[in-house]
Amino acid sequence: MTSLLQNFQKTRAYSVELCSPLEIEDYIPQPVDFASPPKWHLSHSTWFFEEMILKKFVEDYQIFNPHFSFLFNSYYHAVGERAIRTERGTITRPTVSEVYQYRIYVDSHIEKLLKDDVSEELKELIILGINHEQQHQELLITDLKHTLSYNPINPVYKEKFNLTAQKNEEEGWLKISENIYEIGFEGEGFHFDNEEGRHKVFLHDFEISKSLVTNADFLEFIEDGGYENFKYWLDEGWNWVNENQIEAPLYWQKIEGNWYSYTLEGLKQIEPEDILTHISFYEAQAFANWKGCRLPTEFEWEAASNQLKWGKRWEWTYSAYLPYPKFKIAEGAVGEYNGKFMINTMVLRGASTATPKGHERNTYRNFFHPKYRWQITGIRLAK
Amino acid sequence: MTSLLQNFQKTRAYSVELCSPLEIEDYIPQPVDFASPPKWHLSHSTWFFEEMILKKFVEDYQIFNPHFSFLFNSYYHAVGERAIRTERGTITRPTVSEVYQYRIYVDSHIEKLLKDDVSEELKELIILGINHEQQHQELLITDLKHTLSYNPINPVYKEKFNLTAQKNEEEGWLKISENIYEIGFEGEGFHFDNEEGRHKVFLHDFEISKSLVTNADFLEFIEDGGYENFKYWLDEGWNWVNENQIEAPLYWQKIEGNWYSYTLEGLKQIEPEDILTHISFYEAQAFANWKGCRLPTEFEWEAASNQLKWGKRWEWTYSAYLPYPKFKIAEGAVGEYNGKFMINTMVLRGASTATPKGHERNTYRNFFHPKYRWQITGIRLAK
Amino acid sequence: MTSLLQNFQKTRAYSVELCSPLEIEDYIPQPVDFASPPKWHLSHSTWFFEEMILKKFVEDYQIFNPHFSFLFNSYYHAVGERAIRTERGTITRPTVSEVYQYRIYVDSHIEKLLKDDVSEELKELIILGINHEQQHQELLITDLKHTLSYNPINPVYKEKFNLTAQKNEEEGWLKISENIYEIGFEGEGFHFDNEEGRHKVFLHDFEISKSLVTNADFLEFIEDGGYENFKYWLDEGWNWVNENQIEAPLYWQKIEGNWYSYTLEGLKQIEPEDILTHISFYEAQAFANWKGCRLPTEFEWEAASNQLKWGKRWEWTYSAYLPYPKFKIAEGAVGEYNGKFMINTMVLRGASTATPKGHERNTYRNFFHPKYRWQITGIRLAK
Amino acid sequence: MTSLLQNFQKTRAYSVELCSPLEIEDYIPQPVDFASPPKWHLSHSTWFFEEMILKKFVEDYQIFNPHFSFLFNSYYHAVGERAIRTERGTITRPTVSEVYQYRIYVDSHIEKLLKDDVSEELKELIILGINHEQQHQELLITDLKHTLSYNPINPVYKEKFNLTAQKNEEEGWLKISENIYEIGFEGEGFHFDNEEGRHKVFLHDFEISKSLVTNADFLEFIEDGGYENFKYWLDEGWNWVNENQIEAPLYWQKIEGNWYSYTLEGLKQIEPEDILTHISFYEAQAFANWKGCRLPTEFEWEAASNQLKWGKRWEWTYSAYLPYPKFKIAEGAVGEYNGKFMINTMVLRGASTATPKGHERNTYRNFFHPKYRWQITGIRLAK
Repeated sequence: MTSLLQNFQKTRAYSVELCSPLEIEDYIPQPVDFASPPKWHLSHSTWFFEEMILKKFVEDYQIFNPHFSFLFNSYYHAVGERAIRTERGTITRPTVSEVYQYRIYVDSHIEKLLKDDVSEELKELIILGINHEQQHQELLITDLKHTLSYNPINPVYKEKFNLTAQKNEEEGWLKISENIYEIGFEGEGFHFDNEEGRHKVFLHDFEISKSLVTNADFLEFIEDGGYENFKYWLDEGWNWVNENQIEAPLYWQKIEGNWYSYTLEGLKQIEPEDILTHISFYEAQAFANWKGCRLPTEFEWEAASNQLKWGKRWEWTYSAYLPYPKFKIAEGAVGEYNGKFMINTMVLRGASTATPKGHERNTYRNFFHPKYRWQITGIRLAK
Repeated sequence: MTSLLQNFQKTRAYSVELCSPLEIEDYIPQPVDFASPPKWHLSHSTWFFEEMILKKFVEDYQIFNPHFSFLFNSYYHAVGERAIRTERGTITRPTVSEVYQYRIYVDSHIEKLLKDDVSEELKELIILGINHEQQHQELLITDLKHTLSYNPINPVYKEKFNLTAQKNEEEGWLKISENIYEIGFEGEGFHFDNEEGRHKVFLHDFEISKSLVTNADFLEFIEDGGYENFKYWLDEGWNWVNENQIEAPLYWQKIEGNWYSYTLEGLKQIEPEDILTHISFYEAQAFANWKGCRLPTEFEWEAASNQLKWGKRWEWTYSAYLPYPKFKIAEGAVGEYNGKFMINTMVLRGASTATPKGHERNTYRNFFHPKYRWQITGIRLAK
Repeated sequence: MTSLLQNFQKTRAYSVELCSPLEIEDYIPQPVDFASPPKWHLSHSTWFFEEMILKKFVEDYQIFNPHFSFLFNSYYHAVGERAIRTERGTITRPTVSEVYQYRIYVDSHIEKLLKDDVSEELKELIILGINHEQQHQELLITDLKHTLSYNPINPVYKEKFNLTAQKNEEEGWLKISENIYEIGFEGEGFHFDNEEGRHKVFLHDFEISKSLVTNADFLEFIEDGGYENFKYWLDEGWNWVNENQIEAPLYWQKIEGNWYSYTLEGLKQIEPEDILTHISFYEAQAFANWKGCRLPTEFEWEAASNQLKWGKRWEWTYSAYLPYPKFKIAEGAVGEYNGKFMINTMVLRGASTATPKGHERNTYRNFFHPKYRWQITGIRLAK
Repeated sequence: MTSLLQNFQKTRAYSVELCSPLEIEDYIPQPVDFASPPKWHLSHSTWFFEEMILKKFVEDYQIFNPHFSFLFNSYYHAVGERAIRTERGTITRPTVSEVYQYRIYVDSHIEKLLKDDVSEELKELIILGINHEQQHQELLITDLKHTLSYNPINPVYKEKFNLTAQKNEEEGWLKISENIYEIGFEGEGFHFDNEEGRHKVFLHDFEISKSLVTNADFLEFIEDGGYENFKYWLDEGWNWVNENQIEAPLYWQKIEGNWYSYTLEGLKQIEPEDILTHISFYEAQAFANWKGCRLPTEFEWEAASNQLKWGKRWEWTYSAYLPYPKFKIAEGAVGEYNGKFMINTMVLRGASTATPKGHERNTYRNFFHPKYRWQITGIRLAK
C-alpha cells in the first residue's frame, strides 16, 4: 500500500502547503455563498476521511470532536444535520490551530490503516478522499483569491504565484471528421461517477481551435461594444450583464485608462497575449457569437482532446451538465456526490493552473452555473 | 392563396373565441412576471403582423397607433424600446375595445395583401405570424388559468373547458434499439428555427412508457413522503421545494382530507385515473427517481414518437434546451426568436390540450425553466 | 336624521362621481403594494357599512355575497381572514358591475335604517363609515394617478382635473410665542381616535412660513446639487435617494431640457410658481436643511394653524406619529383603526386638493412612511 | 492634563482588555450588516484619534498607514471614500497584530500631545474621542456576542462575564405630577450634540414602574399566546414577528421543554427572576399593551430618572428619536455624528451592563431601529 499511502500523504501535505502563506485572519471570511473559507476546506476534507472511512473501518474509533461532524459536513444530507452553508464565515471556533490538530489526528489514523493490507472497498474510499481533497484544494485557492479580492488594498498571497499568466503554445484549427465516438471513462484509474457509462455519440464534422482566446482577443470584443449589444447575448446573460453592470472579466479594473487585474501576486497590468480567464459562460458564449463561431460541446471536446494542448484553463462547453446514459446514483452519502447538480449547470472540460497535479483527465466533467467566474475559466472556440 | 388566407382567418378568429367567455376585467391582470394578460396576447400577436409584415410590405401603410408598437412589443430588442415586461398588468389604456379595433384594422390589411399573389418571403412571414399567434393562444389560456387561480372564489371560465381531464389510451413499455437516428425537422411545412439542422444522434437501447404518469401514481409518491426526502431531488429542486413549501402539483389543494384542483371549470376533485399535470421538471425528475426510472432525452422521445400516443401533455425530457449542430441565429428581429433562451431551460416534447390544432409536431421543441408549472406539463418515464 | 342621511348619500355619490371618467379596465390594476385599485376602494368602503353596521343593526340581514367579506376586508384582523393585500390587482371577479350592485344594495339598507330614529352608537358608526369612505376617496384618486402614471402614453383621467396646480396666497413668516398650547381634538364633531386626548404641550418661540415651498424653490435645490450632496440628508434618506436613483419629485420627467410632470390631465410642463408637491419626508427634510431652516413639529403646526392658510397640500412635519398621552385603542375591529401604525411613520398636517370637502380639520393627523410620495404632499418651513 | 491623559489611557486599555479573551479568529467575522468585527472597532476608534486630532494638531504627523484611513472610516462621508460597511468581515489584512501596532502608534502620539498644555478645542476632541471609543466598546461586546451566537457550539467568551444576569432592587410605581420639566443636558461635562438644547416639556400626571420587566413576566406573555395575537402588536411589528417567525427574545432557545439563552458564558438556563433583555421595541410595546400599560416617553423617563434605579438595561421609550428644539448639526465631519439618524429610530434611555463605567448619563439618548435586539435592551412600564 506504499504508493497509496504516499499519495495520501502528498495530498494532505499539499493542502497545508497551500495555506502556508496565510495569516490566521485569512482562514476565516466567507464573503459569498458560493465560496468557503480555507479553514472550512481544511476541516471538511479531513471530515470526509473521518466520516466515510475511520468511523466505518476502525474499531472503537474515537471521533476527534463530535461538533466537527456537524460543522464541517457540506451537502451530505444523509449524514446528520449540517451547519448552514452561508454561515461558514461566522464560525471562529474551533480555531485554526485546532483544525490542524484535527488533520494530524485523522492523518495518523488513516496512516495506521494503510500500514496493513486494505480491502478494495477501503482503497477506493481513500482514493475518493484524496480526489475529494484535491477538488477542495482547487476551490481553496480560487475561493481565497476571491475573498482577498474584496480588500481594497489588494493583498499579496505570495510573491511567485500567478494562476493566470499563461500563453498559448499552438495556433490554428483542428478538423475532426464525422463519426461515432466513444465518450466517458474507461479503464482502471480513479474517476468520478459522472464520467461513467462510456457510450457512443455521433458527431458531425467540426473544427476546434488549437489555442484559447487571449486577453487581446477579448479586449477587441470589449472595445467593439460587446458588453452593450444584446444581439450577442443569451437573454439570461443579457439580464446578468445589466443587473450586475458587468463591463469586464472578473477582477479586472480600469485605472487611468489601463486595464489591471487582481492576482494572488497583487494587482497586475493585463498582458494582452496571456490567455483570458475569469469569465462566465454567458461571456464565453457572447464572445463566440461576436466572433462568428461557437463553443464546442463536451463531446466534441473529448473527441478532440488527444490532439489538443489543454490544462491551463477550464474551458466552457455548450453542453449542459446531464447524466450519461446508464448513469446511476450510488447508494448512501457518497451517492450525493455529483448527480444532484445535474440541472442548470454547464460543463467545463480540461483543467486549470489551480488543479492539483495528477487530478486532471480528459473525461473529467467540471460544472458550474453559467454565471460563475471565480474559477480559472477560459474559452476555446469551435465552428 | 386561399388556404393561407383561411388559415390566417381561422387562427385570428380562434384567439377571439378563446376570449369570448371573458369579462373586460379578466383582460387586465398580470400577477406574475412569467405570464401576460389576455389583452397583451391579443395585441402582441397583432403587433407582430403589423411590425413584421404590414410596415414592410404595404406601401404607405398607416400604422394603427404609434403607441402600440411600443406597448405591445415583447422581447424584440431590435425593434425600438419596449415597455417593461413586468408592468403589462398596469396598462389599462388602450382599452380592450381599442385592442379589438386594432385586430380588425390589421386583419383587413393582411387580408387585402393575401388577395394578390404573394412572394415566398411574405408567405413565410404570414405563416410565422400564424404560428406565433398559436403559441400565444396556448399561453393566453394557461396564463389566464394562472391569473384566475389567484382569486379565492375559484372563478369559472367556461362550463365545459377542462384542460386537464385526460386519460391514457395505452399501457406498457416500448423498446427501441441502439442505432443512429435522425433528429430534427425535415421537409416542407412550417417549423421553428430551433428544430432545423436535421442531424444524426446515436442512441443506446432504451425503453419508454406508452402511458403518462397519472394522478394516482403521483399520489403514491406524495403519500410515500416524496416531497420530504431529499434523496429523490436535484439539489436545486430540493431548495425549490423547501423555499416555496411545495407539497403538491400546482393548483392542488387539500380540503377536509380530499384533493381538489383549480380548473377552468372551477374547483374540481382530483380524478385518480386522469393524467397528472402542472408539475415542474424538478417534480418530474424526483418522481422518476423515486420510481427507479428516469425521464427520456428529447432524442429518445423523438425517435420513439411515431410509435407513441402523444399530444395531451407537454412531456418533460432530461435534455437541456441547446442548439442543434449547425444552428444559426437568423439576422434581424425574427432572429431573436428562440436561440437566446438556450440556457437553463429544459426541453418539453409533444403538445398539450391547450395547443391549437395543427400546431403540434414531433420535432417541436418547447422549453421552460425547470421550476415552471403553469403549462400543461406531464411525465413519461423511460429506462 | 335627515342631515346624516344626506351626508351619507352625498358621500356615497361622490365615490361614484370620482369613478365616472373611468373605463372598466382602470378599475383593476394594483402596480404597487401601497396603493389599491378603484374597484377595491369602492367595495371596501361598502363592506365597512355592511360589516360594521348592517350585520349588527339589521335583524335578519342577508349579506350581499359571503365572498365579499373575505375579498374586501382590509387590515381588520379581528373580522375573519382577509385576502392578501398585495394581490388585489388579480381579483377580476366580482366584476365592476357587481361591485356597483353591492353598493346599491348596501346603500338601500343603510338608507332604510336612517329613516327611523337611530341610536347614538349607530349614528357614530355611520359617521365613522362616512369619514372612512372619504379617506378612501382621497386614496382612490391618488392611487389611480399612480397607476395611470405607469402607462407610457400618459393617459388623461379628465380634462379639468389637476390636483397639483395651486399657488400661495400669502408670503412671509408668522411668529409664535413661547407658551403652553392645547393640542388635540375637543368638542362635538367627528374626529379619529388618534386626535383624542387633548393635552398641553410647551412650545418655545418659533417662526413658521405663511407660504409653502414652490416648484421654483425646489428647482433651485435641484440645480444646486441638492440630490447629490449627502450633507443635507438623513442617512436613511441618502440611501433612499441612491438606491432608487431619485433625481426629482415623483412624476417629474425632464424632456429635452424642460421639466414636465404627469397629472390627471396628462403630461404638463412644470409651472415654477405652483406649490411643490409629491415629495417624500426625506426630500422635505433635505430641502429644509439646504435652506437653513427646519420642518415644524405637528404641535407647532397646530398651534399656528388658525393664523395660516392651509388645505392645499398635506404638509410634512418633523413629528413621528405617536400616541397622544392617554391614547387608548378601542375594543374590537374598529379599534384597529389608527393606533397600530404608530411606528416609523411621520405626521402630515393640513389637507390636500384630493381631500373631500368637509373632511379636513386642524387637528387631523395624517401619517405615512417617510419614503412615500404618491399623496399630495408639500413643505412648509419653520425656524 | 493628568486626568485627561489618565482617562484616555484607561479607556484605551479597556478596549484591549475586552479583547483579551479572544482568539485571532474571533476578530474577523461580520455576520450581519448592523454589527462590526472587533478588529474594526479597535481600528475605527483609533482612526478617529488619528483623523480628527493627530492630522490636525501634530505638525508633520506621519500617518501610520494611508490604507487605514480608507478601511476604518465609518459613516463620515466628509472624510474621503469609505470601505463598504457590509464587507468589514472580508478584510483580513491588516492583521490583528498590525491593528494593535496602530493603536500603540496613535496612543503614543496622543500621549505626547497631552503632556503639554492643550487648547480647549483639542481637549474637547480628545474627550469626544474617548466617548466615541466607549460607545464602540459597548458595540464591540454586543456585536461579539451576536457573532459568537451563530456558532452552533455556543462558544464561551469568558467564564465570569454574563451581561444579562441582573435583578431588580425595587418594586412598585412612582407617581410624577403634571408640570413643566426641563429636558436635555445642562452644565459642564461631556455630552453628545443630540442632548443639547435644554428645553421645557409639559408632562401630564403619570406613573412609572420602579422595576424592569423580568423573564418570568415575559414568559407569561409568551404562554398567554402573546406572539400569536395580532391585537397586541403594531402592524409593522406583527409583520416582523411573522416574517422572521419570532417566538421568543433574541438568543432564547427551547430545549426539551426548558428555555435557555446564549450568553457570553455559554448556553445558560433562563432565570425567571432575572431582568428580561434582548427584545425589540416591537416586543416591548406588545408586552406593554398585553399588560394594559404603555412604555414611557423619553421625557417622562428623564423627568423621573432621579427617583429611579437605572443602568442595567437600555430601556425602550415610546419616543421617536427626533431633534430637540434648537438642535443644530455641527459643521464638518464631527457634525455627522448623530443628527442624520433622526428618522425611524426609537429612543432608549438609561445604560446597560455593557456600557463602560462613567459613560452613562440621565440625558443620554441612545437610539435604534425598533426591530433591533442585539443590544442589552429591556422594558420599564408606565401608565
